[in-house]
Amino acid sequence: MNVLDKVMKPKSIAVIGASTKEKTIGSEIMQRLRDYKFAGNIYPVNPKGGMIEGFQAYTSIEEVPGEVDLAVIVVNSKFVLDTIDQCNRKGIKGLCIITAGFKETGAEGAEMEKQLLAKVREYGMRCVGPNCLGVLNTNPDVMMDATFAESLPIAGDIGFVSQSGALGGGILNILKDLNLGFAQFVSIGNQADVNAETMMEYWENDEDVKQILLYMESIQNPANFRKLATRITKKKPIIALKSGRSAAGASAASSHTGSLAGADKAAAALLKQSGVIREFSLKNLFATAKAFSNCPIPQGNRVAIITNSGGPGIMATDAICENGMQMAPITDETKAKLRSFLPAAASVKNPIDMIASAPIEHYTQTLETVIADENVDMIMVIYLPFLGLKDIDVAKALMEIKAKNPTKPIVGVFMTTNDFFNNISNMNVNMPFFMYAEEAAEVFLRLDEQRQWMSKPVGKAPCYDVDKNKVAQIIRKSIDEGREQLTTLESIDVLQAYGIRACKYGLATNVNEVVELGNSIGYPVVMKMTSKTTSHKTDVGGVRVNIQSEEQLRAEYADLIAKLTEKGLIDGLEGVIIQEMVKGNREMVCGIATDPQYGPMMMFGLGGVFVEALKDVTFRIAPLTDIDADEMIKSVKAYKLLQGARGTTPAQMDQIQETLLRLSQLVTDFKFIDELDINPLLISEKTGEGIAVDGRIKVRMKEAQEALKDACACGCNCCG
Amino acid sequence: MNVLDKVMKPKSIAVIGASTKEKTIGSEIMQRLRDYKFAGNIYPVNPKGGMIEGFQAYTSIEEVPGEVDLAVIVVNSKFVLDTIDQCNRKGIKGLCIITAGFKETGAEGAEMEKQLLAKVREYGMRCVGPNCLGVLNTNPDVMMDATFAESLPIAGDIGFVSQSGALGGGILNILKDLNLGFAQFVSIGNQADVNAETMMEYWENDEDVKQILLYMESIQNPANFRKLATRITKKKPIIALKSGRSAAGASAASSHTGSLAGADKAAAALLKQSGVIREFSLKNLFATAKAFSNCPIPQGNRVAIITNSGGPGIMATDAICENGMQMAPITDETKAKLRSFLPAAASVKNPIDMIASAPIEHYTQTLETVIADENVDMIMVIYLPFLGLKDIDVAKALMEIKAKNPTKPIVGVFMTTNDFFNNISNMNVNMPFFMYAEEAAEVFLRLDEQRQWMSKPVGKAPCYDVDKNKVAQIIRKSIDEGREQLTTLESIDVLQAYGIRACKYGLATNVNEVVELGNSIGYPVVMKMTSKTTSHKTDVGGVRVNIQSEEQLRAEYADLIAKLTEKGLIDGLEGVIIQEMVKGNREMVCGIATDPQYGPMMMFGLGGVFVEALKDVTFRIAPLTDIDADEMIKSVKAYKLLQGARGTTPAQMDQIQETLLRLSQLVTDFKFIDELDINPLLISEKTGEGIAVDGRIKVRMKEAQEALKDACACGCNCCG
Repeated sequence: MNVLDKVMKPKSIAVIGASTKEKTIGSEIMQRLRDYKFAGNIYPVNPKGGMIEGFQAYTSIEEVPGEVDLAVIVVNSKFVLDTIDQCNRKGIKGLCIITAGFKETGAEGAEMEKQLLAKVREYGMRCVGPNCLGVLNTNPDVMMDATFAESLPIAGDIGFVSQSGALGGGILNILKDLNLGFAQFVSIGNQADVNAETMMEYWENDEDVKQILLYMESIQNPANFRKLATRITKKKPIIALKSGRSAAGASAASSHTGSLAGADKAAAALLKQSGVIREFSLKNLFATAKAFSNCPIPQGNRVAIITNSGGPGIMATDAICENGMQMAPITDETKAKLRSFLPAAASVKNPIDMIASAPIEHYTQTLETVIADENVDMIMVIYLPFLGLKDIDVAKALMEIKAKNPTKPIVGVFMTTNDFFNNISNMNVNMPFFMYAEEAAEVFLRLDEQRQWMSKPVGKAPCYDVDKNKVAQIIRKSIDEGREQLTTLESIDVLQAYGIRACKYGLATNVNEVVELGNSIGYPVVMKMTSKTTSHKTDVGGVRVNIQSEEQLRAEYADLIAKLTEKGLIDGLEGVIIQEMVKGNREMVCGIATDPQYGPMMMFGLGGVFVEALKDVTFRIAPLTDIDADEMIKSVKAYKLLQGARGTTPAQMDQIQETLLRLSQLVTDFKFIDELDINPLLISEKTGEGIAVDGRIKVRMKEAQEALKDACACGCNCCG
Repeated sequence: MNVLDKVMKPKSIAVIGASTKEKTIGSEIMQRLRDYKFAGNIYPVNPKGGMIEGFQAYTSIEEVPGEVDLAVIVVNSKFVLDTIDQCNRKGIKGLCIITAGFKETGAEGAEMEKQLLAKVREYGMRCVGPNCLGVLNTNPDVMMDATFAESLPIAGDIGFVSQSGALGGGILNILKDLNLGFAQFVSIGNQADVNAETMMEYWENDEDVKQILLYMESIQNPANFRKLATRITKKKPIIALKSGRSAAGASAASSHTGSLAGADKAAAALLKQSGVIREFSLKNLFATAKAFSNCPIPQGNRVAIITNSGGPGIMATDAICENGMQMAPITDETKAKLRSFLPAAASVKNPIDMIASAPIEHYTQTLETVIADENVDMIMVIYLPFLGLKDIDVAKALMEIKAKNPTKPIVGVFMTTNDFFNNISNMNVNMPFFMYAEEAAEVFLRLDEQRQWMSKPVGKAPCYDVDKNKVAQIIRKSIDEGREQLTTLESIDVLQAYGIRACKYGLATNVNEVVELGNSIGYPVVMKMTSKTTSHKTDVGGVRVNIQSEEQLRAEYADLIAKLTEKGLIDGLEGVIIQEMVKGNREMVCGIATDPQYGPMMMFGLGGVFVEALKDVTFRIAPLTDIDADEMIKSVKAYKLLQGARGTTPAQMDQIQETLLRLSQLVTDFKFIDELDINPLLISEKTGEGIAVDGRIKVRMKEAQEALKDACACGCNCCG
């Protein structure tokens, strides 16, 4: 059995620190447990004993007569560690520590929390908190409200994890008004033991929990989160509100990829790759939950709108189209049927305008007719007040039809008074109602996103045959020389060792070598300086393109040497790279940045001088799957350029995808690669290939030294 | 006096078509007039006479004993024209025609509406409708509810124009719940006479109307709307919800500008240029109105957040930053003062977290302290339920502080139950309350937009000294030859005649001329074909760049002739343009498209091959003011490229602005120019100038013929 059941489905609860003093947490929790009618035994523990909220109190946990599954701890923080020992002696495996004063208060508290976790692990317990609001389970067999929130919960199908206690309390208040209920709720507080990932896994196969909602300020273990979420979202939706977006300070990284990355980009990428629906406000989080509670997953994205007013029908159409869905092409059969009972002034095209005077029968008949149309996947029914019609009657009539036709999402948009929404918040509704069409359109989009995700195959990260050894040697040589930044030459060698198409090149250190290389590669060529001290080569005139002949090559080389000497940069010069000149005017960029928390993150998008100004780039956390790579390529605006606009050669999408996957493999194999830029990844006008024309790689010195201590620069793999 | 006063501020109203039959419009309007206690005389008119809703009815309008200011007409459409004649005989100048069955029903109705308008004009009347919900004025001296909406209005400071009758009714229902009231409301229906512009002008200096809200599906006279709105928005905010955005079909235009334009882009540009705040949902329209009703215009965009819970504080910070505002840098003085009374666990940095247990005094003291901070322009106060505190008490305490400190916008975010919002909807509030921080952040942004607009100087459209005559001749020649599309050569000549910097060029029709031109312009040069039949030159290899010498020029010319001959395109060839080669890798685009309703619209943005894929372009309706042109340049992402990234030459912004203004003058002078593209407008790496390297102009043939019938191709200006 799962130890977490002791916390979430206890048969008996002890409240250690229960109190008779009003408005204290020790009193409020006792009241909630009692008022919500917990199905098992309740044992208050207080040194004074006596009766608390009608229950016999015990002076210590060890005196409690029966078995105890869950101890809710509200004692002062300095007693918490001892209390855990006592719980262990009593054989308790479930803890919910409400008490604050741990990690959130500074170093001392953090140390205490470390000890707390050590005890929890040692004793084989599971622990929610410390510094939390508590836990809820509304299953009739459990009926546990072990929180000190203002309102009692209402039952529903949501599993909710909140990283903010106060927010959790606020949410309980709001949800009731929204016809939304919890199956289970966990305020994870400092998440010493139980965190969002624990709960996601716990709820994966829990029948009570049909959707998982997360309020997160951080993701504790991104890789584990991704693994779990990717699997669970194929079964039930996970909807996350991740805050702290703007707090992410600009990264101090020097690369393109680094400067465009940042923690929120990483979180966004991770959630997207994992099939998690991301919301940006509580309002939208709840609206989406309302939709998943009352709607099946649709079969497609074609929406029909039924309205009794033209203006709102137009606004709804705008919202549907702007959210990227389609207006359903109503069949002629449906139109004929609608014509048979709607008045002549009605419009039977989508949006279907029954006109203002539509009686209830027109609503029900129209809805039934539209549900039957196979061209329709989702339906929005708009009601505006009209003389003599009662909003609540219309809603009831719609819900009857919905009950008989559960297979398509139906949403009501009722532009009427608050009274209506108050009324339905006390009813058992089977479809969501909103005040505005835009809200309905947004939830349709969410339903459709879940449909798309569920129908998508599970991505795979391929493993290519690569020369790992060679990369180790190149990097080892660089770090042995004290360079965390590889030279351009080394960077391109690394890319080639991983099978990434880079252009033909060679390094020359004097004019004779320069000419020899130029002649062997064939003109036109490009000449680029490679230097240990200068990283942005173009800024110092270190790149010369379209060199047409040996004569021109000699002249350009002489000029470069003169310029660098003049600027005092000649000492860092390692030589010049003579490179095949790839023709094409589409420059892409791909690269890697490392987020301190999320690890290596891949970027792809429009490159060249446009990278930073236009920011037409997208991110995914490594390792990439084939699905991730495919989506990256298709999600940038420059995809249209890749497809071949105005007579340009279409890019080889498969080859570009493979480039991304090979890069992902590189950074997964060498985790100490901190930054990597391929800019540009030039699209060859001749072949459509993406060719790395320039590369920059930077490693984290210490980690690299540690990881490569057994590799050597000479390539023998034995002299480390 | 303004005749419209007879409609909006009548001293007596006749309801022609008043009825005793329940649930008819003729009965409902009588009830509303009575129930809302109209301040003047009410005269029902019905052929049967008798008493209607307690008022003496008259069998015809001409029998009414007293003077009548406003006739509300609800008779069948076939009687409406006669009724207007009767009203005229009775001396009535104000009409509100509720009756439907006019333009909206087809050609016959449209004809009737035309006659209706003719009568209204002939008799010197003003008329609201037909096919509308009616009019409202809540001023205590008027107290007119001449609508058939379900709810009676509440008084407020909003002047509202609705183009949808049913929507107007829905809005009346909703507003009461939102603490929002109307000063005046007009359902304009088919807007035969009175339209949104009429009402805007009417309300410009009306003290009762502090903000103007518009629900529009179309803008009747864009130029007049712009003129009025630009002026009125400097005095009071105009907030518009313009629907029908997606309905705009893709334009069939062949130019870049045309393909990216479209009616909604035009509406968006017009509203922006006119200082109108545009909203995209009713929800946001009302939220913004709530803010303008209760908040002064701020002095800046620095926001302070006061909260009793960390999580919502973080979410609010995200929302403030994502809406482009600043988190106010609280002064040390303020921090010290907050420290003096808040507990140690509180955070006195912005967002100021008073912690969950904050009592009411902490709310009021913190708010007062923060209001006094000169670094703070706007304040968001967040409340989450906490044991023992009542939300409504907190709200009342905040409102007391607000009453004493009216100079800064203060908004409450109360994450509590619907009950709270129901309670305050029955109170006289002096600050807006929302459930979620994101809603508050959005209204702060609107307040700040209004601040920025009001502090901006009024733009001017300069008039440059240009060669209008030359342009007329060029276009006359083209249309005389039956070409609506000018050749590249002609297009560049037109641009130069208007002082737009285009690169040096000449036309050559044989190899000798080609060489002569190349030698006189100086190498490198570009060679471009010019043809009456082929418009996209690059697609057929008609553009050759970087020609370095006479020898190369001869070879390229020979090759082009051979290629065109092979493809059968040689007949259309007019010659080749030999052009100075401008060096630079920043390609912008500017151009003109014509919207059938809004007229010529200017585009500016990133050009070259990127135009259509990246759509980094912006639009404004011509004629442009200097402010418009400046904003266009600054609003595209490529502005960063213009500023000079990575060592490139900064572009001459003034010169680019002048280019836009000269183009605007061109299209204002020659209204039949249908499309114009300058792509690329190349930014010279040497000087930073924007240089037109290619141009395409298309005219509307018939209009051009009509306008230029007195111009001639020979330039003598006398042989037309």
